[in-house]
Amino acid sequence: MVSHMLDEIRQQPDIIRNLITNEFPRVEALSAAIKSRDIRFAYIAARGTSDNVAHYAKYVLEIEHGIPIALAAPSVFTIYDAIPHLDERALVLGISQSGSGPDVLAVCDRARKTGALTACITNDASSQLAQSVEYPLITPAGPEISVAATKTYTSALAVVALLSTALAADKPDRLAELRRSADQIQATLALDETINALVQRYKDMESCVVIGRGYNHCTASEVALKLTETCLIGAKSFSAADFMHGPIALVHRGYPVILIAPDGKGYDTMQELSEKLRPIHPAVISFAHDPGFLAGSETAIRLPGATPEWLSPLVYVVAGQLFAHWLAVAKGYDPDHPRGLAKVTKTR
Amino acid sequence: MVSHMLDEIRQQPDIIRNLITNEFPRVEALSAAIKSRDIRFAYIAARGTSDNVAHYAKYVLEIEHGIPIALAAPSVFTIYDAIPHLDERALVLGISQSGSGPDVLAVCDRARKTGALTACITNDASSQLAQSVEYPLITPAGPEISVAATKTYTSALAVVALLSTALAADKPDRLAELRRSADQIQATLALDETINALVQRYKDMESCVVIGRGYNHCTASEVALKLTETCLIGAKSFSAADFMHGPIALVHRGYPVILIAPDGKGYDTMQELSEKLRPIHPAVISFAHDPGFLAGSETAIRLPGATPEWLSPLVYVVAGQLFAHWLAVAKGYDPDHPRGLAKVTKTR
Repeated sequence: MVSHMLDEIRQQPDIIRNLITNEFPRVEALSAAIKSRDIRFAYIAARGTSDNVAHYAKYVLEIEHGIPIALAAPSVFTIYDAIPHLDERALVLGISQSGSGPDVLAVCDRARKTGALTACITNDASSQLAQSVEYPLITPAGPEISVAATKTYTSALAVVALLSTALAADKPDRLAELRRSADQIQATLALDETINALVQRYKDMESCVVIGRGYNHCTASEVALKLTETCLIGAKSFSAADFMHGPIALVHRGYPVILIAPDGKGYDTMQELSEKLRPIHPAVISFAHDPGFLAGSETAIRLPGATPEWLSPLVYVVAGQLFAHWLAVAKGYDPDHPRGLAKVTKTR
Repeated sequence: MVSHMLDEIRQQPDIIRNLITNEFPRVEALSAAIKSRDIRFAYIAARGTSDNVAHYAKYVLEIEHGIPIALAAPSVFTIYDAIPHLDERALVLGISQSGSGPDVLAVCDRARKTGALTACITNDASSQLAQSVEYPLITPAGPEISVAATKTYTSALAVVALLSTALAADKPDRLAELRRSADQIQATLALDETINALVQRYKDMESCVVIGRGYNHCTASEVALKLTETCLIGAKSFSAADFMHGPIALVHRGYPVILIAPDGKGYDTMQELSEKLRPIHPAVISFAHDPGFLAGSETAIRLPGATPEWLSPLVYVVAGQLFAHWLAVAKGYDPDHPRGLAKVTKTR
C-alpha cells in the first residue's frame, strides 16, 4: 500500500495547476489592495512548515517587489502581549495550514485592530484564520492525512508565487513560468524509484546538515524538517553563508551534508561551499541540475533544468520530500505517523 | 594556562559596566534620531553570532517599544542585488564584530542611499561599517582572540539593552537594572568550577538540542552555536513553541536536551515543554533559577535570580559559554581554535 505521504506528494502537480487557475482572482484582489494602500512593509506570522513558506515569501517579495518583510516572533504578541506598530501601510499575512494556530490568529487579530491590511494563506476556507482577515487566500490541497506536510507546503509556496505574479508587470510570462513549474514537479516525481534506491545507503544516518542559499534557504529548512519529523534524524539547515561562518567546523569525513543547488544566482555560493567541503571528504548528497556540481558528490540527484530560480523551491523540495519518505521507510518507520507528533499543534 | 576564551568570558562584567557609562551618550543620540524621525520599522543585518544579537534586538524593540523588526536576508542585497524600500521612516542597523562583513556593509550602504536612518554595532570603531553609517555604536570589548565570540556577543546585547533604556520612559530604573545584570554575570562566573565538573558526563555528546523561549530564543541559538564551534557537536536550537511543532519527534531516552528557562513570561512554555519531555526520559540539562524546574533535570545549573527577563539573555548565555568551554576541554579540543574556522568570515 502506498503511504498517505507518498500519495499526497504525488498530488502536487495537479493541485498547483488547479490553484493557478482558480485562486488567481482572489490573489489579484489582494495585489490591488497592496498597491492602492501603498504598503511599505509586510509582517508575516507562521510556525513550523508554514514558517518555511514565510521565508520563501520574504525572498520573493523583497527581491521581486522591494517590500521589506519582517517575520513575526509570535510570542511577542501571545506571551509578552506587545503591540508592534502595524498600521495601514503594513500588510500582515498569517500562514497556517489548519488556520487554527492561536499564535498566528493572535497576530492577525491584533494587526487588524491597529489598521493593517490583513491576509492569510490557509488550507481551510472555513477556519477561524480565514474568517478573521480581509483577504483569505486558500490552498486547494484537500485534506492532508499524513502528519508531515507536503502538498500544503508546495501549495502555499505556489500562492506566494501567484501573489508575486499578480504584483508584477510581466504577468503572462510569470504565469507561464508558474504553470511550467507544475510540469517540472511532475518530472521530479519520476525520480521516485531512483531516490528510493539511493536512500538505502543512508539507512543508519542519525544526523546531517542541509544547506541552501537565497531562494532555497527555505528548501533546506523544509527538507531538514521533513527528515527530522519522518526519519527522526537530527537534521539542521543553514544558509550556505551562515554555514561558512561557524557550523562548517562540525563537518568531518563521512558526515552527511545535503546540498540544494539549483541553477541561478545562489549557485555560486553553493559551488564555493562545495569546494571548501571537498578536502574534508564529507558524504555529500546533492540536489542539482548542473552535471559539474553533481559530479563531485557521493550521491547525485539530478533535477529537471530550466526552472527559474524564484520557482525552484517548488520543484526542489519535492525531491527532498521523496528522499525523506523513502529514507523513513528504509529505517522502518511509518512516514504517516511520526513519533510524538500531532497534525495540528496549538502553541501560544 | 587559562585559554583566551575563558579569559574573555571572565572580562564580561567589567566590559559591560564600562559600556553602560561610556556608550550611553552615543546611544542616546541614536534614540533621539529614532524619535525625531518617527521611525516605523527597523531592518537589521547580521551573520553568525551577531545574528543572535539581532534576534535579541527584535524582541526588545518590538516588545518594549512597538517597533516592528525585520531581520535582513543579506543575500537579497548581495546576490540578488535587490533594493527593498527602506526610506527615511526605516532604521537600518548593521551588527558585525569586525565591522568588515561585506554582506552587512552592503545592506547599510544601500539603505543609506535610499534615505534610511543608518546605525551599527561593532567592536571596531575604525572599521568600514563604523565609517559608513550615521550612528556607529561601539562595543568596548577590546580585541577578541578566541575564534568563538563571547565578550563581543554580550557587549552587543548590552548595547541593544542600552538603546532600549534610552528609548524608554523609565531610564533610571532601566539603567539600574542593566548595571545589576553586570553583577549577575559576575555571580554566574562563580559557577565556573561547578560547570567544569558537570560537563564531564557529556564528554561523548555528539548532538543535542538547545531550547529557549521568547527573549531567550537568542540564548538557545548562541549556546548551540558555541557548542557547534568549540565542541563540534551537532547542536540545534529551537524556540520551545517551534520545537513542539515537529522536532520534538527527534527526542528519545537519553538524548541531550538543554533547556534555557529563566524566570519570566517565557517560563510557562518551558515548563510545559519540560512536562511533555518527562515521559520520554531525555537527558535534560537545565539552566534556570527556579528550584522546581531544576529538580526534574539530569543536570541542573542554577543561575542567580532576580534578573528581569529582558536582561536574562546577558546573564544566561555566560553559563552556556562556560559549559561549551569546559566541554570542549573535556573533549580534548582547544576552545580557542575550533577546527576549520577563521575569526572573520567574509561572505557575500
